[in-house]
Amino acid sequence: MSSYPDSVERLISEFTKFPGIGKKSAQRMAFHVLMSKNEQSDHLAQAVMDVKTKILLCSCCGGITEKDPCHICSDPKRDKNLICIVEDPADIYSFERMGIFRGLYHVLGGVISPLDGIGPDNLNINSLLNRVHEGMELILATNSSIEGDTTALYLGKIFSEKGVKVTRLARGIPVGGDLEYIDEATLQRAIEGRTQL
Amino acid sequence: MSSYPDSVERLISEFTKFPGIGKKSAQRMAFHVLMSKNEQSDHLAQAVMDVKTKILLCSCCGGITEKDPCHICSDPKRDKNLICIVEDPADIYSFERMGIFRGLYHVLGGVISPLDGIGPDNLNINSLLNRVHEGMELILATNSSIEGDTTALYLGKIFSEKGVKVTRLARGIPVGGDLEYIDEATLQRAIEGRTQL
Repeated sequence: MSSYPDSVERLISEFTKFPGIGKKSAQRMAFHVLMSKNEQSDHLAQAVMDVKTKILLCSCCGGITEKDPCHICSDPKRDKNLICIVEDPADIYSFERMGIFRGLYHVLGGVISPLDGIGPDNLNINSLLNRVHEGMELILATNSSIEGDTTALYLGKIFSEKGVKVTRLARGIPVGGDLEYIDEATLQRAIEGRTQL
Repeated sequence: MSSYPDSVERLISEFTKFPGIGKKSAQRMAFHVLMSKNEQSDHLAQAVMDVKTKILLCSCCGGITEKDPCHICSDPKRDKNLICIVEDPADIYSFERMGIFRGLYHVLGGVISPLDGIGPDNLNINSLLNRVHEGMELILATNSSIEGDTTALYLGKIFSEKGVKVTRLARGIPVGGDLEYIDEATLQRAIEGRTQL
């Protein structure tokens, strides 16, 4: 059996490091690069380098940006009394795509996970303490996982002592979801959180 | 709605050019690059550049290689009287993974496709004519599409006039295939090509 030339093998192995990209997809991607015009692969390599040199973390919210503070934190039209707390910078864009959230964000940079050795001290919580003042609302938008819930509980406890309104995203049936396929835990949350028509 | 920083947007758009990579996957990949160590993204960019500078097409078979002729064409243990004709360089590695094919390859660089303006003159057929001599066998391994079949028919006609044995890959039920889910065309080919036990 003959294997790919070294440089192709190396590119395939780089592509398999991406989340959700298996060996077969990586091979297709490597051949796509091979068969593309030089100009196009230059653009790809340049884009990879650019993203690493140009992007920094906003000193205020911890989101990604090309200039500090980011354009969300420096937008005067945003509601400074409403902060949505997320795990990762990518989560900010899930809210932004929705197009109606007018508050600010704060990126924790992870969640409390004792098994991975990540405690509250490893998260971006101190800078959040500096941003929070009485009368504002914090929306805890960590993921709906055990670690996400633990982190939300922990933050809820800290901040509710500071006279801050702390909320958590609603749990329930996703829009378009079919009851037949909804798991029990979600259905239980949907009943607990039922609203009056 | 706020969009990604420019450099991130650009990287996402580069990733969406890959086959099978949609907007969501490209976003995940871009954030993976962002969150990876500088060293790792350097490796990726370098691997993309390397593959374009180091890889050339073998002057004999048209496959990809780092030195010409490729190690398959220059392997003295390979059977020079058996050439497997494929559409693309990537197809060679499907046969090589099998590990038992001991002949040589020839890459057409496409298939006859009048709708796309690709005729026999656009394919790597002349160099194949120079490699072929009486008494050898050509295996036509173009894809099982209309264009692949047309190309195989065309080549079969040319080469059977030259005293060459021309064969085509067998069509039938894939190993592990369930009869319930096999399409009619495949089943018809499987019956036509049935073998005696």
